[in-house]
Amino acid sequence: MSVESFCINPIGYVYTSYQQKFGVPRQPGLVPASIGILKLLPEYSFECVRGLSDFEYIWVHFIFHQVLKDGWSPLIRPPRLGGKQKKGVFATRSPHRPNHLGLSLVRLEKIEFDKTVNLYLSGVDFVNETPVIDVKPYLPIIESKPDALSGYVNSLPEKLLVNWSIESLQQLNYLNIDYQLKELIEESIAQDPRPVHQNILDKTYVMKVNQFDVYFCVQDRIAIISQIVLTE
Amino acid sequence: MSVESFCINPIGYVYTSYQQKFGVPRQPGLVPASIGILKLLPEYSFECVRGLSDFEYIWVHFIFHQVLKDGWSPLIRPPRLGGKQKKGVFATRSPHRPNHLGLSLVRLEKIEFDKTVNLYLSGVDFVNETPVIDVKPYLPIIESKPDALSGYVNSLPEKLLVNWSIESLQQLNYLNIDYQLKELIEESIAQDPRPVHQNILDKTYVMKVNQFDVYFCVQDRIAIISQIVLTE
Repeated sequence: MSVESFCINPIGYVYTSYQQKFGVPRQPGLVPASIGILKLLPEYSFECVRGLSDFEYIWVHFIFHQVLKDGWSPLIRPPRLGGKQKKGVFATRSPHRPNHLGLSLVRLEKIEFDKTVNLYLSGVDFVNETPVIDVKPYLPIIESKPDALSGYVNSLPEKLLVNWSIESLQQLNYLNIDYQLKELIEESIAQDPRPVHQNILDKTYVMKVNQFDVYFCVQDRIAIISQIVLTE
Repeated sequence: MSVESFCINPIGYVYTSYQQKFGVPRQPGLVPASIGILKLLPEYSFECVRGLSDFEYIWVHFIFHQVLKDGWSPLIRPPRLGGKQKKGVFATRSPHRPNHLGLSLVRLEKIEFDKTVNLYLSGVDFVNETPVIDVKPYLPIIESKPDALSGYVNSLPEKLLVNWSIESLQQLNYLNIDYQLKELIEESIAQDPRPVHQNILDKTYVMKVNQFDVYFCVQDRIAIISQIVLTE
């Protein structure tokens, strides 16, 4: 059988607070405060989403565009196994996969029309400006299998405790960072975004959220946010 | 922002008994007897699926290849609404969608290696030779939302009663059609594969299953299988 290839075009782009891969939740739903706006391209009219707002959750098909140049690996060390075990790429949700296709179940908060169709999403795990290639309604009657066996993915990852330094709290206030963004920062760091091989004491990490650099370090299972700096 | 496009290559093809779109279940899982073998292309080694058999269900991303030439429609009449209402394409799972991307949750029965990696699937809703572009494990902890609101898709469609004529039972026997295939035919027709606009009395429909043509008609909610004919 001949092997054809298919040309896929974005239907829109999703805009989030995550300016880099570092800090993006590893699965959707883990950080409810992470919101995103999916702006459909102008050729997709309001008609195309008629009836979609009756669904609480939607599937977003997207491209892991930031790793396209990295190619893919047959074996992956899933973060939740602490980087100690390798699994086949198709047994993981790693972005380093053939075709770099992502699939996330996110909450649909509302749909608005303002020149283009805008879908307001929460619990997202997308880097800012991720290209979206399809949207589908979530069908619990078909797709909810609470008792399905699921190998090494059988519980939510353990969270870090997150503390703010006095200085970072003052900066929060000074920079007028709202409660929603504070929550996003806190919940995202609680998910322990550190690469699996790094458990280096006193190392400072930087997470880019909107126009801010958020500095933190981790000791034992406690993350301390030390500083927030405006970058623009 | 510039709009790029992405080149997607099949990772394999799935082989099923459904030789045509007509008769393919409208969702996965509706016909447990419908089995499929996903044969990965030779570049995907056994390593790529290491650990996957610990998962009971997998996501199969595929291309609705038989409707590529038809393009897409902004509005769709979902079969379960009897063709009486239109919904936006993104509020349906219709194949007539931008990019023609399909997504099915199927049961992974076993994995075997015989020159290529073969995944044995059940509850499939694929036409024979469907190109597959990704496989992912199903994560119930993230993806099972039994109480999610789901618009017009809140129950399984009502089944037809299926009867076999004496002649068709004799043909079953004569053609050595095994129990699994008999079940697949019966369950697929019970799903009422007729196009939504057709409720024509005495019309005979033909479903192509493996090398057989299966003839049936529907009166009220009863389907009668009249004949099975070998086509090759």
